[in-house]
Amino acid sequence: MTNVPTRADRFSFGLWTVGWRAQDPFGDATRPALDPVEAVHRLSELGAYGVTFHDDDLIPFGTDTAERDRLIARFTSALDETGLVVPMATTNLFHHPAFKEGGLTSNDRGVRRFALRKVLRNVDLAAQLGASTYVMWGGREGSESDGAKDVAAALERYREAVDLIAEYIVDHDYGLRLALEPKPNEPRGDILLPTVGHALGFISTLEHADMVGLNPEVGHEQMAGLNYVHGIAQAMWQGKLFHLDLNGQRGIKYDQDLVFGHGDLLNAFFLVDLLENGPVGGGPAYDGPRHFDYKPLRTEDIDGVWDSAAANMRTYLLLKERAAAFRADPEVAEAMATTQVRELARPTLAEGEGYKQLLADESAFETFDADAAGAQGYGVVRLNQLAVEHVLGAR
Amino acid sequence: MTNVPTRADRFSFGLWTVGWRAQDPFGDATRPALDPVEAVHRLSELGAYGVTFHDDDLIPFGTDTAERDRLIARFTSALDETGLVVPMATTNLFHHPAFKEGGLTSNDRGVRRFALRKVLRNVDLAAQLGASTYVMWGGREGSESDGAKDVAAALERYREAVDLIAEYIVDHDYGLRLALEPKPNEPRGDILLPTVGHALGFISTLEHADMVGLNPEVGHEQMAGLNYVHGIAQAMWQGKLFHLDLNGQRGIKYDQDLVFGHGDLLNAFFLVDLLENGPVGGGPAYDGPRHFDYKPLRTEDIDGVWDSAAANMRTYLLLKERAAAFRADPEVAEAMATTQVRELARPTLAEGEGYKQLLADESAFETFDADAAGAQGYGVVRLNQLAVEHVLGAR
Amino acid sequence: MTNVPTRADRFSFGLWTVGWRAQDPFGDATRPALDPVEAVHRLSELGAYGVTFHDDDLIPFGTDTAERDRLIARFTSALDETGLVVPMATTNLFHHPAFKEGGLTSNDRGVRRFALRKVLRNVDLAAQLGASTYVMWGGREGSESDGAKDVAAALERYREAVDLIAEYIVDHDYGLRLALEPKPNEPRGDILLPTVGHALGFISTLEHADMVGLNPEVGHEQMAGLNYVHGIAQAMWQGKLFHLDLNGQRGIKYDQDLVFGHGDLLNAFFLVDLLENGPVGGGPAYDGPRHFDYKPLRTEDIDGVWDSAAANMRTYLLLKERAAAFRADPEVAEAMATTQVRELARPTLAEGEGYKQLLADESAFETFDADAAGAQGYGVVRLNQLAVEHVLGAR
Amino acid sequence: MTNVPTRADRFSFGLWTVGWRAQDPFGDATRPALDPVEAVHRLSELGAYGVTFHDDDLIPFGTDTAERDRLIARFTSALDETGLVVPMATTNLFHHPAFKEGGLTSNDRGVRRFALRKVLRNVDLAAQLGASTYVMWGGREGSESDGAKDVAAALERYREAVDLIAEYIVDHDYGLRLALEPKPNEPRGDILLPTVGHALGFISTLEHADMVGLNPEVGHEQMAGLNYVHGIAQAMWQGKLFHLDLNGQRGIKYDQDLVFGHGDLLNAFFLVDLLENGPVGGGPAYDGPRHFDYKPLRTEDIDGVWDSAAANMRTYLLLKERAAAFRADPEVAEAMATTQVRELARPTLAEGEGYKQLLADESAFETFDADAAGAQGYGVVRLNQLAVEHVLGAR
Repeated sequence: MTNVPTRADRFSFGLWTVGWRAQDPFGDATRPALDPVEAVHRLSELGAYGVTFHDDDLIPFGTDTAERDRLIARFTSALDETGLVVPMATTNLFHHPAFKEGGLTSNDRGVRRFALRKVLRNVDLAAQLGASTYVMWGGREGSESDGAKDVAAALERYREAVDLIAEYIVDHDYGLRLALEPKPNEPRGDILLPTVGHALGFISTLEHADMVGLNPEVGHEQMAGLNYVHGIAQAMWQGKLFHLDLNGQRGIKYDQDLVFGHGDLLNAFFLVDLLENGPVGGGPAYDGPRHFDYKPLRTEDIDGVWDSAAANMRTYLLLKERAAAFRADPEVAEAMATTQVRELARPTLAEGEGYKQLLADESAFETFDADAAGAQGYGVVRLNQLAVEHVLGAR
Repeated sequence: MTNVPTRADRFSFGLWTVGWRAQDPFGDATRPALDPVEAVHRLSELGAYGVTFHDDDLIPFGTDTAERDRLIARFTSALDETGLVVPMATTNLFHHPAFKEGGLTSNDRGVRRFALRKVLRNVDLAAQLGASTYVMWGGREGSESDGAKDVAAALERYREAVDLIAEYIVDHDYGLRLALEPKPNEPRGDILLPTVGHALGFISTLEHADMVGLNPEVGHEQMAGLNYVHGIAQAMWQGKLFHLDLNGQRGIKYDQDLVFGHGDLLNAFFLVDLLENGPVGGGPAYDGPRHFDYKPLRTEDIDGVWDSAAANMRTYLLLKERAAAFRADPEVAEAMATTQVRELARPTLAEGEGYKQLLADESAFETFDADAAGAQGYGVVRLNQLAVEHVLGAR
Repeated sequence: MTNVPTRADRFSFGLWTVGWRAQDPFGDATRPALDPVEAVHRLSELGAYGVTFHDDDLIPFGTDTAERDRLIARFTSALDETGLVVPMATTNLFHHPAFKEGGLTSNDRGVRRFALRKVLRNVDLAAQLGASTYVMWGGREGSESDGAKDVAAALERYREAVDLIAEYIVDHDYGLRLALEPKPNEPRGDILLPTVGHALGFISTLEHADMVGLNPEVGHEQMAGLNYVHGIAQAMWQGKLFHLDLNGQRGIKYDQDLVFGHGDLLNAFFLVDLLENGPVGGGPAYDGPRHFDYKPLRTEDIDGVWDSAAANMRTYLLLKERAAAFRADPEVAEAMATTQVRELARPTLAEGEGYKQLLADESAFETFDADAAGAQGYGVVRLNQLAVEHVLGAR
Repeated sequence: MTNVPTRADRFSFGLWTVGWRAQDPFGDATRPALDPVEAVHRLSELGAYGVTFHDDDLIPFGTDTAERDRLIARFTSALDETGLVVPMATTNLFHHPAFKEGGLTSNDRGVRRFALRKVLRNVDLAAQLGASTYVMWGGREGSESDGAKDVAAALERYREAVDLIAEYIVDHDYGLRLALEPKPNEPRGDILLPTVGHALGFISTLEHADMVGLNPEVGHEQMAGLNYVHGIAQAMWQGKLFHLDLNGQRGIKYDQDLVFGHGDLLNAFFLVDLLENGPVGGGPAYDGPRHFDYKPLRTEDIDGVWDSAAANMRTYLLLKERAAAFRADPEVAEAMATTQVRELARPTLAEGEGYKQLLADESAFETFDADAAGAQGYGVVRLNQLAVEHVLGAR
């Protein structure tokens, strides 16, 4: 079997993914707890290069300092033994009841201060473990009633918090970048910064905007019916794709966290193509970790957990292979030419042209044959069909 | 009957709303064309203060210059006779087949140049008619196949276009501001800048970012399952709510453009509360036009058209009345206190406090009683129920 | 304050609603367990007439017989003391890990047999407590992978199970009717019998179809973007509205179980109108319990629990009042006449007419003026606006 | 290139698919009209075996009898020349303004009678052309306001209509079966019989229920977020899959009518597997036409139209090939065994067992080890991954 993952593929997994005990809103856990050290060893054997964590994944909420140190030491040893790295870490600001009305934007100022402290503490650990990205998912930052949350004030508090964390990182020379993770809803009725776009807008208001980017998740964008490839493309275009969460989702419903590729397979193909090969009109590819944030189905035992972890990587590699073939296929090149898709990289104005020259160009308006333009065929279906056939391995 | 609209309410309508002939994807027009001059007179009688238009609403595509001048003159006379103003204008870059693959981001550069020219021409007219906002809805800027559109290049072209239009406006001292209108899909499978957030993110990349803001539409955000009140709050917080499109939508489906309030009535209540009264924690209210972008149902004849136009304004005014009572109700104030919603406007850090002081504050972490924080009741349901009862006119 | 609930209103609540401890997929319980006896007393004080339960709400999974008897006796005493009745009971076939792949349609036959036994045991209890409806919600009957569930076989097994339970009820002369509760997804990726319609279709295949009907839930239909009023109307029309679950949902997303009326308020109004007053063209009203299946928000403490329970009833009664006024308003009657909505109750064929007579009627086709029919106005917006204004208490 | 369609594949297309002129709610037609005779010839060359039509596709609304006869004759000649058959026909009850408030359930009785006549007239033609299925899509049977449509009365009128049409067919010995086509919304806000399930429920009330089945469309079910494979499985299980409409849809949004496979590719794979191979636990495959109801994208010219028509068939055949390999793969068989998916075809009760025996079986309850059942692994992810890899042509 080809397509065996290696460290060079830079695949990483959250401790909370393979470690998910499969408790859901209507049912109890179906799997025992998984020791993070065991997770590190097994992920390493499967070919991953990195492991990521929330503070509470590694160190249960309320653990005292001595035990905390012991847990970190065990984990660090496992990393050393396996060579696995920690590219990213994040804070759990959602599980404890204290955060039920929000974390960094809780209406209760005491909770907000506690949340900030919890983040700073884990930022120290992230730096200590060599992470380069610190993710912020504000899963409880939201509301169910439009009357009980002042969204403007909440965004102001979130800005206050992100600015402070960024300042802390800068002052400590930690070399970490912050990556915001949007989600439209669940567990809150409506979550702040619900999409890639809202987070990009928010970032533009920050004092340290340059060191704050995104960690978009496949399923989160698809829960809003949005095209993940489009969102990733905008994030890349704005230089803000710092990290990403790969998984699968089957449409607008609860957060499924399926294995990568087990949701919208065509969109997954175009995603891998964009990440690996960059925009068709030119531009850089993605060079960060390929991070999986999925949940092994609740029907699975521990064998199913490791099978599902492997499945994420294998599908990614297969799609990467398909994407390379797609880009290399002369018939695809010809079909792309018909769609003129690469022509879009060419500026609309000529070199040195301004609106005055444009207004003087009769061919642009006065003599432009709009009907002829409207009658031409772009051959979009043919190109899309070629993509489908490459996905199907039929070319 | 109270709640009769007056000019002071600043209600405006698009020519294309009352003038919609009710052709849909599966059926023919059910109403005859409506003369824009007639529209102006009737909207004036109903109490509107403004009328807005796409270039092609007023001047059919392809009209020669002489006829164009005649049409503009007739329209201007109607404005003069009634006192109606033109607060906003926009360009139709979606109806003619030439735009089938996009307007300002068409893969075909000739189409892009033509689209730019069409915009500039109508910007002149908008300025001439005294508009202060120029809306850009990129309904055709999108794709159905992820392979046939280079989203990064498309955003680059859109930036090029918006920058050029902004420069043109500045150079001509037109005093116009640009307002981008997001929409997630329809008529394209996926549209660029699908939500309020994506547009805010995009604006941050512009040369003239200060004069570019948003024109968010109720139904467009709700088509992505997003909370319109949250979106408006973020836009206001970023100083970008330049204009807005009020209407109704019943969930995630095709674009319905129902009468304002005929969709999610509770969200409409909280919207009017936010627009009229500002955030509960303080901050400015909205001071732009209350613009309706709706479509009279296809089942209606011309009487139904005017009834529906009036319905938009009446519901707005009723909700404004309900919102004022909500804000003035002492029981609401008490319930708000329990939710601590107004407390969120208070900074998380004390005056002059930085992370060092925060880290030194043991009450923020070491002695913080997380369990007590998690056990407190926020009384969110009670506050929301008070809102429901105010909406129902039951208090 | 009028609109105080009384026993005559027949409001009922599930033990699992006020007793929900507010654990969700991302967070721990925020409230202590609630004693069912306490729940009975408080619901009684608030004006409810009935309480409903899953077996495991009353008797934790795995309880021995002696303890089971004691728990039932305590509960029965509370019912006796308060006068509360048990109109409905149901089985928990979703919480224990044994049901992770399904209950009555698990791929594992042992689980299916166990599930059947669990149902029969609780059917005995339901009958003993005087229930008239036994609800079946198959929350785990579904799949995440289309390859791992044979839907045809699953439906066959569900039919086998429902037929057996029905036979058991008949043989024991329990007087219970079965009510299936549809849900499209969550906790499974796709659930069998996802909507009111699928359940109606399924019922038509049953041996005891006459004693099997529906228990549709507001939020469950709305999670599929369906109109709950339409679904209820079809269920009533087919004589299958045996029971119902009232709550609130804000669009297509995870199952929110909000307070009734805190979701789509207009749809809630038309629902109450239909339940209380029957179809506008004539037909029976609903005469079963008004059952609330909601969850107090996770932000609430026990005071919030009881406030939210009361809110459900109060909103129902307010909407009932508004609906009565709507039906009595002469302007509504006039607007209804324009829509011809009541005309639809009149058969399309005349008394005694068959297709031969219809084919011979030239006015029906040859001389029918289709253009005139297409030009008439139905005044739908005006009628809808009158409804909005009645909801707003503005008429 | 293998996978070339032949008549034996029984592929059919609607005249309205390749003939769609690409007018949408925001834009004009981009393609000229296509002569039905030309469509017949080109579809035949591409390998289709059948063509289907709405009355108005072939004979424009309002055409006189002589011209109607001429158009039918031309079309019949084309069929004769090519050997193409007409497996299905249907009525256009949605395009003309007369149907704006409904067709067979319009509030206006005159419209209802006209609609019935229009159906009967085209039923004659369908029979004359040898069709075996007559489809009824009630696209205008619905509402935007819950107050302006009496859904119970509407269903009663729809029943009256379907019963009458069925009686007409029986009396004329036409050998046609009726197939209802569900859709949740668009062009109406909510459409009657919104899903496969609602139509199945409705059918159970009909006098001629045996000759009425379904014509489910991929995109229509997916517009409600429902799993099309599940819906088809239920329809097959109830013996009601008379015909089907294959196309593609990308989630919950407007009706996209994409090429088959250009939406949810994994679901398309499992669909073809079910249609071609029957349920995994046994049961008949589908033996009707493979009918495509799609729209060539608006960006396409006539070459794109024919490319897209061919793409539908090619993808179907490729998926058929993949499904055959999936079923034949020993590793898949082994993975299926772990999931126990085939075990579900085995009755829950033993031969001759009733509830008494079940109650007496201690192993079913008293000694059943629920914890062990909950701990077992079903290996669902592994099976699903094998399916993904077969789809990718990687096995």
